[in-house]
Amino acid sequence: MDERERERESCKPDRERKTSQRTLNGAPAPVRPARCTRMCFRGQMFSVLALLLPALTGSVSGVALFEATERNCSLSPPHLPSTAVNSTLRLRRLRERMLASKISAYILPGTDAHLSEYIAPRDARVAFMTGFTGSAGTAVVTPSKAALWTDSRYWVQAERQMDCNWELQRDASVSSVAEWLISEVPRGGRIGFDPFLFSLKTQEDYGMSLESSNRSLESMPGNLVDQVWNERPPVRPDGLIRLPDRVIQRSWQMKVEQIRNQMKANPYEPTALLLSALDETAWLFNMRGNDIPYNPFFYSYTLLTVDEIWLFVHTERVTEELRAYLNASCGGPLCVRLRSYDAVSDGLKAYVSGRPGAKVWIGAKYTNYALYEVIKSQDKLMATSYSPVLTAKAVKDDTERRILRDAHVRDAAAVMQLLVRLETAAPDGKETELSASAYVDRCRSKQKDNKGPSFETISASGPNAALAHYSPTRESNRMLTVDEMYLVDSGGQYLDGTTDITRTVHWGTPTAMQKEAFTRVLMGNIEISRTIFPSGTRGVNMEMLGRRALWEVGLNYGHGTGHGLGNYFGVHEWPVGFQGNNIPFREGMFTSIEPGYYKENDFGIRIEDVAVVVPAHTKYGHNYLTFETVSLVPYDRKLIDTSLLSPVQLQWLNKYYETIRRLTGPELDRQGLHAEKRWMLKNTEPFGQSGSSSSSPSSSLTLFPLVVAVFNFAL
Amino acid sequence: MDERERERESCKPDRERKTSQRTLNGAPAPVRPARCTRMCFRGQMFSVLALLLPALTGSVSGVALFEATERNCSLSPPHLPSTAVNSTLRLRRLRERMLASKISAYILPGTDAHLSEYIAPRDARVAFMTGFTGSAGTAVVTPSKAALWTDSRYWVQAERQMDCNWELQRDASVSSVAEWLISEVPRGGRIGFDPFLFSLKTQEDYGMSLESSNRSLESMPGNLVDQVWNERPPVRPDGLIRLPDRVIQRSWQMKVEQIRNQMKANPYEPTALLLSALDETAWLFNMRGNDIPYNPFFYSYTLLTVDEIWLFVHTERVTEELRAYLNASCGGPLCVRLRSYDAVSDGLKAYVSGRPGAKVWIGAKYTNYALYEVIKSQDKLMATSYSPVLTAKAVKDDTERRILRDAHVRDAAAVMQLLVRLETAAPDGKETELSASAYVDRCRSKQKDNKGPSFETISASGPNAALAHYSPTRESNRMLTVDEMYLVDSGGQYLDGTTDITRTVHWGTPTAMQKEAFTRVLMGNIEISRTIFPSGTRGVNMEMLGRRALWEVGLNYGHGTGHGLGNYFGVHEWPVGFQGNNIPFREGMFTSIEPGYYKENDFGIRIEDVAVVVPAHTKYGHNYLTFETVSLVPYDRKLIDTSLLSPVQLQWLNKYYETIRRLTGPELDRQGLHAEKRWMLKNTEPFGQSGSSSSSPSSSLTLFPLVVAVFNFAL
Repeated sequence: MDERERERESCKPDRERKTSQRTLNGAPAPVRPARCTRMCFRGQMFSVLALLLPALTGSVSGVALFEATERNCSLSPPHLPSTAVNSTLRLRRLRERMLASKISAYILPGTDAHLSEYIAPRDARVAFMTGFTGSAGTAVVTPSKAALWTDSRYWVQAERQMDCNWELQRDASVSSVAEWLISEVPRGGRIGFDPFLFSLKTQEDYGMSLESSNRSLESMPGNLVDQVWNERPPVRPDGLIRLPDRVIQRSWQMKVEQIRNQMKANPYEPTALLLSALDETAWLFNMRGNDIPYNPFFYSYTLLTVDEIWLFVHTERVTEELRAYLNASCGGPLCVRLRSYDAVSDGLKAYVSGRPGAKVWIGAKYTNYALYEVIKSQDKLMATSYSPVLTAKAVKDDTERRILRDAHVRDAAAVMQLLVRLETAAPDGKETELSASAYVDRCRSKQKDNKGPSFETISASGPNAALAHYSPTRESNRMLTVDEMYLVDSGGQYLDGTTDITRTVHWGTPTAMQKEAFTRVLMGNIEISRTIFPSGTRGVNMEMLGRRALWEVGLNYGHGTGHGLGNYFGVHEWPVGFQGNNIPFREGMFTSIEPGYYKENDFGIRIEDVAVVVPAHTKYGHNYLTFETVSLVPYDRKLIDTSLLSPVQLQWLNKYYETIRRLTGPELDRQGLHAEKRWMLKNTEPFGQSGSSSSSPSSSLTLFPLVVAVFNFAL
Repeated sequence: MDERERERESCKPDRERKTSQRTLNGAPAPVRPARCTRMCFRGQMFSVLALLLPALTGSVSGVALFEATERNCSLSPPHLPSTAVNSTLRLRRLRERMLASKISAYILPGTDAHLSEYIAPRDARVAFMTGFTGSAGTAVVTPSKAALWTDSRYWVQAERQMDCNWELQRDASVSSVAEWLISEVPRGGRIGFDPFLFSLKTQEDYGMSLESSNRSLESMPGNLVDQVWNERPPVRPDGLIRLPDRVIQRSWQMKVEQIRNQMKANPYEPTALLLSALDETAWLFNMRGNDIPYNPFFYSYTLLTVDEIWLFVHTERVTEELRAYLNASCGGPLCVRLRSYDAVSDGLKAYVSGRPGAKVWIGAKYTNYALYEVIKSQDKLMATSYSPVLTAKAVKDDTERRILRDAHVRDAAAVMQLLVRLETAAPDGKETELSASAYVDRCRSKQKDNKGPSFETISASGPNAALAHYSPTRESNRMLTVDEMYLVDSGGQYLDGTTDITRTVHWGTPTAMQKEAFTRVLMGNIEISRTIFPSGTRGVNMEMLGRRALWEVGLNYGHGTGHGLGNYFGVHEWPVGFQGNNIPFREGMFTSIEPGYYKENDFGIRIEDVAVVVPAHTKYGHNYLTFETVSLVPYDRKLIDTSLLSPVQLQWLNKYYETIRRLTGPELDRQGLHAEKRWMLKNTEPFGQSGSSSSSPSSSLTLFPLVVAVFNFAL
């Protein structure tokens, strides 16, 4: 085995792994709640393009086609694929409960009591009822019908996983659900929902849509699905940790003070703050958990008052060490009083009714309707869209910025290991989507402080990549070849940071259209990254820069353009990003930038980097910002048509490549990744101004690493 | 008098006019509700730059300085300028009414019962109470205090018009008003408002802000200000017209059918549609009025049911001819039943309570809270943001598109007349802001089908133009000179269309900074105008293109980037435009595009054109759109630094100039405006690719008009 061989083998598992599905704890996930949830669609804004159907013909090396794997309910008897789940019995049992509760319909959203985007297996009620395991879905059951609403990312998946008890509804808006309810539920009928699974906003949306329709929307405590779900997974008994001091600038006590100061400064004089989203409590106490695959959270609520702190948690999980860390045995304003997780409603009720002048501040977007009802009934509410914890958390402190950049340097090494391996092995027919996915996960796992992947790796070749959300399965797994483009979207959880990066490559000869599309996606990435904007500009007002070069030739993509991320949190760390409900950009926020293009049945392109918001120095103004890219992996040169790039775009690209050399070069050396170092240097050679991608260095700064590259290679 | 002199004199009034303030009907406006209302600020999104203070020093030729003209309430006795209104007596009388009504505060918004942006003199209650005549303002009165909230456009004006009974509050958000109310009104206090002056949304915003503050928000029919306003102007007795057939493609009966079809297709099965905004009724019936200066509307509501039409209007204004036109004597589904304007609440109440299954569709943004309460109390409401009339009206039909383009050709002739005159006369010290304003109004009035200006002309030199909203008065009037930049923002009402255009010029030598800023504003205008986007993209997602070239060097502007307009309606024809609450762009919509830059105490730049949304032909896609500029006046060449423009921007500019030549050339000939024709040809010479603005034609297409230009000049 020569050096190159050794390097390629460096991320091989110690023993062959039998599953490609790793959770945060290494165990196979019983369901796959995080699957296919990588992109954030905004169906109402852009027409969805080319995301719908997998390859039906012309597969070069696909192991399986989808065609036969989808249900066909118009046949008699219906065709059901082996992946379909028999829902007859569970539907019958749910309907018995509905009858007893005198409701004509039951709405079941695909979230948990914390309105989480990714959920734990025990909260996968929609998956249990329908068989459908995609992350975005709402199920509704009536005495005679059952329907699932999901967006275009998941239509194929739903047709494969559901039996014919279930209708698939393709407009996933609340108003579509409401219109269906009006047509199916008779006037005077009662429509039930679990208030722990509705946000205040969801309840309002349904309420408004059903208003004056003569159907009533009923909040029904005690989830009906849970009553018929015998095998519902339990809460894990362990898994709570505190973060080590080396990744912390502010102790939890300092954060508590900071948030209390915000409460005191507020003219509405809130006396308490209720934290419902799981990352709010995790952030406040510098703690993490393991309840949700890929997401280091633990079931919890916090009621932070001006002089007390109540943590609602499964108290048996809190070790003695953590109790000491939290000052759980005292009663002062910086002592954490532990209460049972299930006592949150009672605890909140006791607070609002027992304390004169109580006023509880909530973030409306992440507070469930059950807790809202407790406060609202006492008229002691103060609501903003997001809690002050979420807005404070969005701006990283100096330590968080530094270590999150550090994590990206190590992460780049892992991704380069994958790209180097594939460049050699894929043309030889030695790699598949699944093996590539396993390889990059393994490379990451060997990096310092790694805590597993931050989501299920998307490893997609040819037409599979046209499904923006695709992750390979044994059935769909494709061999990687020089004839197809390959897209890999992956990320890691590290103690110091969460990463998320997408690269699209071609090992053969791309078509002119592939090259043009790739270059225009790259132009979108560059245009956002280099733009200068006043502090406080919202992402949604800039994200069209990611699309504009595509729009010029009539191309587009059907998903969002980026999401916040941070230090060992969920890979989608809202409310930072480019969505309509995201908060304005400020210095010190981190976001992904990820335009793409997907050609149905053919190929998919996405270029995703993480960037930090930094000050921009302008000729006349102050308080202007721009992005600095912290992901550090070069793009496939073969796919870049430099004749389409403007001089300023080329300049940006060359400067970015200099940064990659400066930051990853020493790290690759340190890790002894010599082949990766050579690959990195070769792939970050500066572009000339012309259409040629041959090196014509524009400054001595870029010339120097070139020399180094040659020197290294000679070794 | 040679030919040039004659041309310059062509727009002179028949007899010298004594006032510069023309209303739609030529009468002086008793108050100036439309003053300073040209721009649409979005204070929450962009920091407001350079809009605050007029010139305090260094005035070259200003007639008056503002310094001494603002109140100073910290002096004893306070300094009050002659423009301040004594509000002591009217405040005392209002407080007597408040006492009788047992309220601790009264909120007075600056709108009318139709939530109009521009209001009639009889609705100028804020102006009556405070003295402040700006269009955007909310007044609140308590037993001991009185405060006015307005945005930065109006702070100077408010300081000049209010006496020391009134505080000026500079954060004009609802939450700022609410916080003030919480600090001034004791717990348990009642806060009153006139439900006819609150939209449903306004009530919700206040309700949410005052929620659980232990102050109650009380809807109080019978406006308290009207009770103490003895001299309140009456409704005009005349002024209703129907549009001539030559400007109409769809009769009102066809429009009624079209809207009824939308009602029938709606799954919520509305049985009636309530039209509250004044342009909704005007559009539906192809009628216009004269109740609001510059805005051809008439007081009215329409209740359009599936089989009846109720028009609530001052019936004595409806002539026999109009009654025949409206089929007012019959009772069928296409007969208009006339009811008294003041009977709208009762009529609505009778409908919702008398008709089983009634459901009334309203547009939440333009329906007042009083009418909402009528429907809501019966639980018979269906609300969308905008009524189907407003969304249908936004897309112009073929005739509307054609005649609106036509109106812009004639309008361009009038604006060119002004620019030619100023170019000759201003350097000789023969023109002022007021004389220029009067001149362009007069030029427009001579154009075919003109119905007066569409708003009060903004004619602003030097530092006055730094106030984006400025219109000249006798006190502020500046002489025009070669030492200052000059900005003119004006528009006309024509039977076939409404226009709105801004040009900024310099007759001397601009500074490098002025040239750079102007060029970057122009780049913003071009970038929006030339962009290609999928049908259904929202303006707010593209408007940063208007700012981006400015942002690059740390410059910005503090107002919106454009608003819809159409065929003889208000100059701000919402909901089309670039604001956050505007609807997505579709083919056939018209919008202004108007980036700017304002340097405090120095100069102001704005470049405003009207553009129509047209199909774009792209390489790969379908259903893509772009803008086509329909305003047809060249920009000041002296202010364009072509070295900053990209090749594609220069190409756009040259193509636009070809269009100006093609469309206005024949019209200028027809009107015998020879000097204007020569000026137009000279100013639309194609730009070369280099930084020079000398002509270097890039194609025979552009060469040809050049030859024509020389030929004409030789004549």
